Amino acid sequence: MAAIEHFWAVIPAGGAGTRLWPLSRAASPKFLHDLTGTGRSLLLDTYQRLAPLVADRVLVVAGPAHRDAVLAQLTDLPEQAVLVEPSGRDSMAAIGLAAAVLELTDPDAVLGSFAADHVIADRAAFQADVHRAVLAAQQGWLVTIGIAPTAASTAFGYLRQGDLLADLPGTHRVAAFVEKPDQATARGYLDAGGYWWNAGMFLVRPTVLLDLLAQTHPDFAAALRTIARDRGRLAELWPTLPRIAVDHAVAEPAAAQGRVAMVPASFDWDDLGDFDSLATRLVGDAGTGVLGDQALVRMVQATGLVVPGSGRTVAVVGLDDVVVVDTPDALLVTTRAHAQQVKDLVARLQAEDRPDLL
Amino acid sequence: MAAIEHFWAVIPAGGAGTRLWPLSRAASPKFLHDLTGTGRSLLLDTYQRLAPLVADRVLVVAGPAHRDAVLAQLTDLPEQAVLVEPSGRDSMAAIGLAAAVLELTDPDAVLGSFAADHVIADRAAFQADVHRAVLAAQQGWLVTIGIAPTAASTAFGYLRQGDLLADLPGTHRVAAFVEKPDQATARGYLDAGGYWWNAGMFLVRPTVLLDLLAQTHPDFAAALRTIARDRGRLAELWPTLPRIAVDHAVAEPAAAQGRVAMVPASFDWDDLGDFDSLATRLVGDAGTGVLGDQALVRMVQATGLVVPGSGRTVAVVGLDDVVVVDTPDALLVTTRAHAQQVKDLVARLQAEDRPDLL
Repeated sequence: MAAIEHFWAVIPAGGAGTRLWPLSRAASPKFLHDLTGTGRSLLLDTYQRLAPLVADRVLVVAGPAHRDAVLAQLTDLPEQAVLVEPSGRDSMAAIGLAAAVLELTDPDAVLGSFAADHVIADRAAFQADVHRAVLAAQQGWLVTIGIAPTAASTAFGYLRQGDLLADLPGTHRVAAFVEKPDQATARGYLDAGGYWWNAGMFLVRPTVLLDLLAQTHPDFAAALRTIARDRGRLAELWPTLPRIAVDHAVAEPAAAQGRVAMVPASFDWDDLGDFDSLATRLVGDAGTGVLGDQALVRMVQATGLVVPGSGRTVAVVGLDDVVVVDTPDALLVTTRAHAQQVKDLVARLQAEDRPDLL
Repeated sequence: MAAIEHFWAVIPAGGAGTRLWPLSRAASPKFLHDLTGTGRSLLLDTYQRLAPLVADRVLVVAGPAHRDAVLAQLTDLPEQAVLVEPSGRDSMAAIGLAAAVLELTDPDAVLGSFAADHVIADRAAFQADVHRAVLAAQQGWLVTIGIAPTAASTAFGYLRQGDLLADLPGTHRVAAFVEKPDQATARGYLDAGGYWWNAGMFLVRPTVLLDLLAQTHPDFAAALRTIARDRGRLAELWPTLPRIAVDHAVAEPAAAQGRVAMVPASFDWDDLGDFDSLATRLVGDAGTGVLGDQALVRMVQATGLVVPGSGRTVAVVGLDDVVVVDTPDALLVTTRAHAQQVKDLVARLQAEDRPDLL
């Protein structure tokens, strides 16, 4: 597959992945880990999925604590391709910074923003969908790729599908972005059809994105453009930027104006949001999934997910659907059904001010 | 309380405690550990419970791998008070060796054999019962101390109580030793009354014990007496001794001859046989027991027993009656209800020939 000229991949490498504690840690978050047993981190997998589409046109937006790890994993990446955000200020600031930089350096750019910690196995299908989305972005649309729901999930926001666009085959207008629903509402979406998961993938021309932002947050857009022209002002201006997701800052109001398009994904997608979704990928017919060295694990009348991450033997006796995550300094024992509540534990460690454990 | 003249405490410090894996290990078995949170090992607690009764008349029978640890914990004990058995050959050999040694060194001796890894909190009651048992042993009885059953346990053998002995207040003849029963039989014993748990405590004059042994196993008794006279023959003769428990070798046939007496215990007793019984002792009103540093444990919607034994933080989310035992090289996750099956896991490690994990 040939690269798409002027198409840039933007990879915001942020997000703590707190529901994957103690595997995902502040100093070594989810995207730096191999969570699929492929031998590649989620970040490297994301990069390799995009590289054929963009050649060397990649920008990674990362925190100062992760810059070196990103460069160590993405050995093809030149240092200047990592934009270091002084602090995490949510996705609008991260993607907006990349957009402002590209607006100056490549006036014909289309950027596609893809999280560093999602799993997409079918690269060919992904690349075909991105091709289609780039066509719409080139025409001035803010484009997203919608994921067909496989369950009545309450963990994701949804896209409500509008009309098919006449000149862009297989591409819909987005009627609205819908917040994470309750269970009954999610069930209704699944039954009704025409609703898609919002996986946070956006393709857009940088100027379109920043002009949309300027409609609702003019100072924000101006600050991003100032930083792009004069990087010396990054430290001064960055802390003034609002903490807001690109979905709320730009995509929702743009959808209300009829300016958002959606390409339905033809690939499977997984955000590996918690240990239950990790288990779903890793647990085989024997009922047990191991992320790491199988030889360290002993299951006796037991099933579930085991991450033997400290080199120690892990033995489980008489528990089904258990989750055991063993790391050198912290151990988690839970169940697949309680996987979401791991964030309550992390909140407690935050309240205790235990950065050593976070 | 004054010491009882010529009364010797014999402490067989053996037993792997496999149902307490990975806390109890071949190199560091159960009796060397503080399993009650008192700061004392079970061995030291046993020793301190007996010391007021015997002054310095103590013999510990231990394996070569544990001799130094025994001496390190029992700092009052002279080196010659540890009888080193070249290999574990069950309790008849261990106690018989001590009996043969005492038969030579103190013709008026009564020995009392008490496991190194049982828990008895009420020392005064224990000492009073032992006093009573010694009186019977001095008269030539093989005496045991029976434990009042608190449940229809299938984990212990039982003593069937016979007549009260006329000249020994509160002391019964033992009608029979009964093997570990099934659940219905155990329930019947509890309902019927007159049945007591066999806790393996025996008080007897050494010559009585060895002469009883000689009735059924003359070569065994002769070998023990030979070793006592000539320790140089220990290595040669020890491997020839039958592997048999004192209960089967001596106590059962002696009971059939009407020669076994029983003092009912007036103290609480616990053999800490598995993590469920450990949990019963340690779990408080909050539903969680911690053996070790409480500050390392985080329970979120969870109850059970946690042993944080490696210095790492242990977090449990959404599991009730869980058992988590964290040691530097091995981790066990199970439930109180499955505590007995930990021995199946150990059997599997034995079958795998993994001495490093045993």
